[in-house]
Amino acid sequence: MNKKVLIVGGVAGGASAAARLRRLDENIEIILFERGQYISFANCGLPYHIGEVIKKREKLLLQTPEAMKKRFNIDVRVHNEVISIDKENKKVSVKNTITGDIYDESYDELILSTGSSPQRPAIPGINGENIFTIWNIPDMDDIKDYLSKENIKEVSIVGGGFIGVEMAENFCELGLDVHIIQRPNQVMPTVDFEMAQFLHQYMEDKGIKLILEDGVKEFRSEGGKTIVITNKGREIVSDLVILSIGIKANSQLAKDAGLELNDRGGIIVNEYLKTSDPHIYAVGDVIQVKDFVNGVNTMVPLAGPANKQGRIVANNIAGYREEYKGTQGTSVAKIFDMTISSTGTNEKTLMKLGKSYGRDYQSIYLHPVNHAGYYPGSQVIHMKLIYELPTGRVLGAQGIGGAGTDKRIDVIATAIRFGATVESLKELELAYAPPYSSAKDPVNMAGFIATNHLSGNMDVIQYYEIEELNLNEYTILDVRTPVERNFGFIPNSINIAVDQLRDRLDELDKAKTIVVYCAVGVRSWTAYNVLKHNGFSPRNLTGGYTTYSTAYYNQEGKIDYPKN
Amino acid sequence: MNKKVLIVGGVAGGASAAARLRRLDENIEIILFERGQYISFANCGLPYHIGEVIKKREKLLLQTPEAMKKRFNIDVRVHNEVISIDKENKKVSVKNTITGDIYDESYDELILSTGSSPQRPAIPGINGENIFTIWNIPDMDDIKDYLSKENIKEVSIVGGGFIGVEMAENFCELGLDVHIIQRPNQVMPTVDFEMAQFLHQYMEDKGIKLILEDGVKEFRSEGGKTIVITNKGREIVSDLVILSIGIKANSQLAKDAGLELNDRGGIIVNEYLKTSDPHIYAVGDVIQVKDFVNGVNTMVPLAGPANKQGRIVANNIAGYREEYKGTQGTSVAKIFDMTISSTGTNEKTLMKLGKSYGRDYQSIYLHPVNHAGYYPGSQVIHMKLIYELPTGRVLGAQGIGGAGTDKRIDVIATAIRFGATVESLKELELAYAPPYSSAKDPVNMAGFIATNHLSGNMDVIQYYEIEELNLNEYTILDVRTPVERNFGFIPNSINIAVDQLRDRLDELDKAKTIVVYCAVGVRSWTAYNVLKHNGFSPRNLTGGYTTYSTAYYNQEGKIDYPKN
Repeated sequence: MNKKVLIVGGVAGGASAAARLRRLDENIEIILFERGQYISFANCGLPYHIGEVIKKREKLLLQTPEAMKKRFNIDVRVHNEVISIDKENKKVSVKNTITGDIYDESYDELILSTGSSPQRPAIPGINGENIFTIWNIPDMDDIKDYLSKENIKEVSIVGGGFIGVEMAENFCELGLDVHIIQRPNQVMPTVDFEMAQFLHQYMEDKGIKLILEDGVKEFRSEGGKTIVITNKGREIVSDLVILSIGIKANSQLAKDAGLELNDRGGIIVNEYLKTSDPHIYAVGDVIQVKDFVNGVNTMVPLAGPANKQGRIVANNIAGYREEYKGTQGTSVAKIFDMTISSTGTNEKTLMKLGKSYGRDYQSIYLHPVNHAGYYPGSQVIHMKLIYELPTGRVLGAQGIGGAGTDKRIDVIATAIRFGATVESLKELELAYAPPYSSAKDPVNMAGFIATNHLSGNMDVIQYYEIEELNLNEYTILDVRTPVERNFGFIPNSINIAVDQLRDRLDELDKAKTIVVYCAVGVRSWTAYNVLKHNGFSPRNLTGGYTTYSTAYYNQEGKIDYPKN
Repeated sequence: MNKKVLIVGGVAGGASAAARLRRLDENIEIILFERGQYISFANCGLPYHIGEVIKKREKLLLQTPEAMKKRFNIDVRVHNEVISIDKENKKVSVKNTITGDIYDESYDELILSTGSSPQRPAIPGINGENIFTIWNIPDMDDIKDYLSKENIKEVSIVGGGFIGVEMAENFCELGLDVHIIQRPNQVMPTVDFEMAQFLHQYMEDKGIKLILEDGVKEFRSEGGKTIVITNKGREIVSDLVILSIGIKANSQLAKDAGLELNDRGGIIVNEYLKTSDPHIYAVGDVIQVKDFVNGVNTMVPLAGPANKQGRIVANNIAGYREEYKGTQGTSVAKIFDMTISSTGTNEKTLMKLGKSYGRDYQSIYLHPVNHAGYYPGSQVIHMKLIYELPTGRVLGAQGIGGAGTDKRIDVIATAIRFGATVESLKELELAYAPPYSSAKDPVNMAGFIATNHLSGNMDVIQYYEIEELNLNEYTILDVRTPVERNFGFIPNSINIAVDQLRDRLDELDKAKTIVVYCAVGVRSWTAYNVLKHNGFSPRNLTGGYTTYSTAYYNQEGKIDYPKN
């Protein structure tokens, strides 16, 4: 008899597994259950249909049950919810959500791709009629419908992660006023605070109102509007509210079946994506994965990994043994003309893990342009590179900027996959022509800077260390031109332009450590060497005034980050 | 006494070495000799100033002797040509090309960055007044000057490599009629013929006239015009001619000094970029490098490697031992909205090396779009991936297409640097959001396809094998829809759309091998599996009809490539 595989959940991982499984084996019986109406829809595209960037709704429907049947001979059952698993007898109980009928279906192998759902915490008023989540096609339809019927002007988005930020862009493009309310001190938690500050500045320039470090206490319904009342007492009158606070794994089914879960409700799987039951696999947002860089267990709800996991599970079921080696969290989001991308671990995570975890690290910053400066249209990419000490192994990278930001992060993501060190980043041979890059690509530059530090040639100081400096022991030296200083400088810094430095060394006190900075860290590196080879003890402010001043954007006084 | 380093040649590698050397050591005496007027100019930008994309000439002058002096305390001597090296006594003889004075300068270490020059073969009439090369600022000035003074309409470009192609674009943008005369059967020799065919089609659509497989026999001057007479008897009346045939290493100085050269005149250096003399280093176009992928010796005139070599030589001189690990030839060019990029080795090179060289390989093609198809503006990237058999080690990749082509090649270039196999390409975790990629990035897709082949799951057939098939033994099966066939199909193929295949298997002859194809190779892969699991022996046409039909673009009858 032919093998029979049931798949629970028809989006991303589930759909990938189904198609791959059929390609590997024409004879397996495959049934795909989806409790909703749609399989394989473009969940990452939902904000863009609301924003009318993607005009046609049907473009988001990547597969239909009929097409899956025709192309892959897969029995797709939408509106069919698997409500329990009998793992001893290898069968599931399924409810047809239209008819209410309940029936059993046996399996040889079962794949859980139940995904995740948006959190709806118990905030008073959260079930108001103009408060929406955005997670699937019906959510999107509801929001579109509400937008078309009501006179919407003010939108509040609670939660500033990927979806919050993408929704903010799309609402802005529709001409709406947008607020983002975010409990942490930054949007886009995948990047570190000082990197997110570039984004904060950009979003506020675009008219998005950011309310950070504040949460929602209550939603009060008043005259067809919702007043979002925050913990700090702000009241934002909103015509529409989007909840994008976070997600929870849809693992009740797995839990009820007695499968092992972690404390966040994630299904625990082994390297072959098999759960604690030998005939049940799981993929996607619902599973716990290994953090590829830190080696710890984590949960990473991303489409790329989900799709790859689906394929791997199919391979394993069809007898082509394949391991899933972990998730490094490579991600990207667009907001207007800015790209925010990151890969590997961030500094927040490393701090949370702590040095007790055994890993010392270093961060450096750079602000290169995406292609030859002399070729028109070059755009800045703000980059952060994090690497392990003393090995130099690359742990993570973050990029915020214009065109080509995603390229640099993808290159570093690739390097991380191979266990790259910062030395290897400088050796990478990347494609150069003036419209695409520079002869030394930004990724090479990151490698150069990190290697200068790692080899002991460059002592680095971080932006957050500046305000704690004892000026009896330190001189802060600005090597930019006086004209640049007109637009701002570090308090208590003195100014000697780099090109005059060799002639003015006698103005500096050799007994003090010299913290040297310029706009981005390039001229200061030249100055650093002049100082070092003349008997001074310099430290180079990594990222220069650009990182420093942006980190302090909208901050009154001291930044309480990073706490280490 | 301080160490004294002389650098011969002030562009790319030479300028990089100088700046790095100063950063590493404030006390070394550094003298940079440049026989021309300009140091560190943007040679890759020259075509774009002619095309008025880069409006201001001064943008191309990246450094001046004065600025190098101020910033780096380097003694830059333009119009100073090093005319001989006395390596026994460690000194050079220098001619001031303005005054004619000749003087000696001693050194502790000498760096040769003498570059290369355009070839001017002994073709009758080649010194005509409207025949130009484009290699440096004076060349560019001469062309700009000629363009402004003469009534230029018809331009002939002899040689269709990077510079030829970039010049073609720029002349087109100026509204000129452009011919490219190219001796091989393709432009852009970095990519293989069938990939260049995408480019040929695109360039001809843009109005560029390509004359391939033909060389210049004579340039005849007539009434202020030059008639380019080809070996095949074409006569192209031209107002201006650009020679971009190839380059030769500027190694006469090294040869006269008795340094070891290869048979192409390239200076032989060791892994530390040291020549056969222990105090002379060399970098850039003038040296022989190791082909990173094939391990053979080669010469690769690219700005990226030259700059990195300059930095490495400086490190070695300053006592920070560093190896140059070879050049993989990653490159990119833009022509209008198309990007042509490649990395690693190409099939031509592998064929030239031959299987006797011990390497068996496989090529696969794919034609993904650069980002989610449902997000507006997606563009096709035509890709070729070459990998070693049976190891699966990635040997090279070529991409021709729209936005994001360079990104995919850079990702593969990075993977190659780490000795990646095709299995690792499929595991790469790359940044995905609809405006940037798909959940399975094109690079992942390349990995999937190659792994399907490598693992023995997919038997692949190449476009050039089709015409040799004996139809008594083979059935050519087109699984596209009948509508798609209206726009062309492979001769003698039969049509069963993939979605009907399971029901129509009885129309196929099991005794024959079934060559299955669709537009790009995706549906045919599904069909392949249906066939295989039903007892047929299928082979999948890699790249599908897109690769096949483009390879035959403008070809009458049989393609005489690849010869293997």
